[in-house]
Amino acid sequence: MNASVSVPSLFNLRPEAERAPTSGIVDVFNYGRNREGLIPLWVGEGDLPTPSFICDAATRSLAAGETFYTYQRGIPELRQALSRYHERVYGQPVDPERFFVTSGGMPAMQIAVRMVAGTGDDVLIPTPAWPNFAGAITVAGARPVGVPMIFGQNGWNLDLEGFEKAVTPHTRAILINSPANPTGWTATPADLRAILEFARRHGLWIVADEIYGRFIYDPALTVNGRAPSFRDVMTPDDRIIFVQTFSKNWAMTGWRLGWLEAPPALGQTIENLIQYQSSGTPVFVQRAGIAALEQGEDFVAHQIERARTGREIVGRLTETGLVDLPPPSGAFYAFFKVKGGTSSQEIAIRLIEEANVGLAPGSAFGEAGEGYLRLCYARKASDLEEAVCRINAALPKISG
Amino acid sequence: MNASVSVPSLFNLRPEAERAPTSGIVDVFNYGRNREGLIPLWVGEGDLPTPSFICDAATRSLAAGETFYTYQRGIPELRQALSRYHERVYGQPVDPERFFVTSGGMPAMQIAVRMVAGTGDDVLIPTPAWPNFAGAITVAGARPVGVPMIFGQNGWNLDLEGFEKAVTPHTRAILINSPANPTGWTATPADLRAILEFARRHGLWIVADEIYGRFIYDPALTVNGRAPSFRDVMTPDDRIIFVQTFSKNWAMTGWRLGWLEAPPALGQTIENLIQYQSSGTPVFVQRAGIAALEQGEDFVAHQIERARTGREIVGRLTETGLVDLPPPSGAFYAFFKVKGGTSSQEIAIRLIEEANVGLAPGSAFGEAGEGYLRLCYARKASDLEEAVCRINAALPKISG
Repeated sequence: MNASVSVPSLFNLRPEAERAPTSGIVDVFNYGRNREGLIPLWVGEGDLPTPSFICDAATRSLAAGETFYTYQRGIPELRQALSRYHERVYGQPVDPERFFVTSGGMPAMQIAVRMVAGTGDDVLIPTPAWPNFAGAITVAGARPVGVPMIFGQNGWNLDLEGFEKAVTPHTRAILINSPANPTGWTATPADLRAILEFARRHGLWIVADEIYGRFIYDPALTVNGRAPSFRDVMTPDDRIIFVQTFSKNWAMTGWRLGWLEAPPALGQTIENLIQYQSSGTPVFVQRAGIAALEQGEDFVAHQIERARTGREIVGRLTETGLVDLPPPSGAFYAFFKVKGGTSSQEIAIRLIEEANVGLAPGSAFGEAGEGYLRLCYARKASDLEEAVCRINAALPKISG
Repeated sequence: MNASVSVPSLFNLRPEAERAPTSGIVDVFNYGRNREGLIPLWVGEGDLPTPSFICDAATRSLAAGETFYTYQRGIPELRQALSRYHERVYGQPVDPERFFVTSGGMPAMQIAVRMVAGTGDDVLIPTPAWPNFAGAITVAGARPVGVPMIFGQNGWNLDLEGFEKAVTPHTRAILINSPANPTGWTATPADLRAILEFARRHGLWIVADEIYGRFIYDPALTVNGRAPSFRDVMTPDDRIIFVQTFSKNWAMTGWRLGWLEAPPALGQTIENLIQYQSSGTPVFVQRAGIAALEQGEDFVAHQIERARTGREIVGRLTETGLVDLPPPSGAFYAFFKVKGGTSSQEIAIRLIEEANVGLAPGSAFGEAGEGYLRLCYARKASDLEEAVCRINAALPKISG
């Protein structure tokens, strides 16, 4: 479970700060981090370093002396490159003024949340969900309201009735992550239309996290090589904020580079919030981002292909008959239930001990994730084959 | 003046977000940014790019593939280097566990403020002050309460009685910037003891911004080559959070690298807030920080010497008899009043037109700054000589 922190009362910290939840993955991570031979599949990042053509762009920028303060909204060249990238991937031109460069996807999320929710407000999130969504909402003083997805034979499905039941006069926004971490659930165009209709009817903002949009495996859900997007069904006036990152497509987790896309009318507010959050993103990091967008398609295709192979390998976890693992439609996680298992946390610890494989406990993704484990398969095939082999051998000892 | 933003009401943004103030320097900056031959002295950064030994450390790290997620508190090597640096500069050992790496001084400030103040809380700030202090407090939902400093023949002085009058049951913290931007005011050890005593008596946090601590010119205020610090008068149990940056000493404004120093009991809370703010600082940027701390003393000495020369040059602004400019004790700004001048904003615009020099209007630093202008003298002597010459020639037309 994600715990809040107890600080000695003499420090008298703000409740929002004290409530900032500690990651539910940390305990497991700390238990296993230094074990020899452990295969680490607990974190949401691949095993490839950033390709050298991207690093080189940063190095050239540093050598050119681009080490000064810069535009709070991002350098114009990167905003224009984002516009071209979106036109290429989504098939529609997008005004560069809609893009705001941030120091990572998480800062983009933080700004999006702070614009739409604070003390006294609720934000709906389908769960299981990446824990940082609830974290960002909590530190903003608002309340994350989890709406459990429905788990069935065909995997996870949205509970639209659950949204209707959860909405109150305090509800200000709904956060939709598709393809989803950790479940791999991917919204159909009909889902997206239904969510948009729901948000319009109740006057809610949509915060759209489509960062795994290019990691899509189900042909029925594939539109021009990517997952369905809110941009396929929205109008420019809809209250939707997209949060995005360079981390996954281009193996740039450690660079802290992302972007927001929002109606230009929010531009000055976003610029001001960036000023007080990061005061801008290093120019040399932004130059790397331009290289990624303009020269990175082969690398992205390679990453997707690797993940597709990884997904097939980890599908063999079902061979034991001891886990429920519906094939994930998108993203790069297997989220599986151990039949007759105890708590996620205990199973994760046991799998470190018995299989020397590091997985994230499903309980870290909200109550709806209890009993599950998350495995990141954005990794080389040989590691994944070995990990599946070891897990399958250990499962009979762990399954109840 | 620093204005809040008006967003169409249909967007229904949070009031804290809409209240995020736009920088009061922006209008002047936009007016003059593309003028040929303009000497830009409005921003708080020097004219030197980051030295190559620092850039090289980042380049080596990138080449070594350090492009993955990392420790939220900062890599251990940087926290240890910070500990050694503090021992060297302040003469006392400091536990590395007291340091938390942030993606700039502003993110450090944001976390410090959010830990101690939110909706319903007041934070005291001596003014004139760097506008981002009030900005960070405002977006946290709290209220910045300016306490004007007293301006006299010897320059600016703290109004301790003003603090006592301004404190209420809602006051949670006091933010002290010494040496100060924009005034150059530098606290004496007696000032620091008095502030600490005041904070202890009222149960307030102190947020201490001593980022210009090595830029000190008044020999009477110089302790081992640096300005007096709260660490000279505090005990480890005092509720003081230091916010710091690599920007000024090592010409790294564009890198976004800073740190917090706080009691280790706050460690888990700070780690969690970093998680939801930036999710950590790039390792390759942190490696550059280590190079700065361990090999940067000659460069820091060079920067200080340059600023000392710059300070002497801009002192010639008083030769016209048309400005009040008490010699600043520290930092690298001249904050001067034009006798008989109109508003800061108007004078700044006139100086762009008449002298082609860019200065920051004092009104951006709070009401107490109206009538003043801020000039950054961390710049090569020839630029400053030319700027002073042009300003002195223009002043008779501007002064009332």
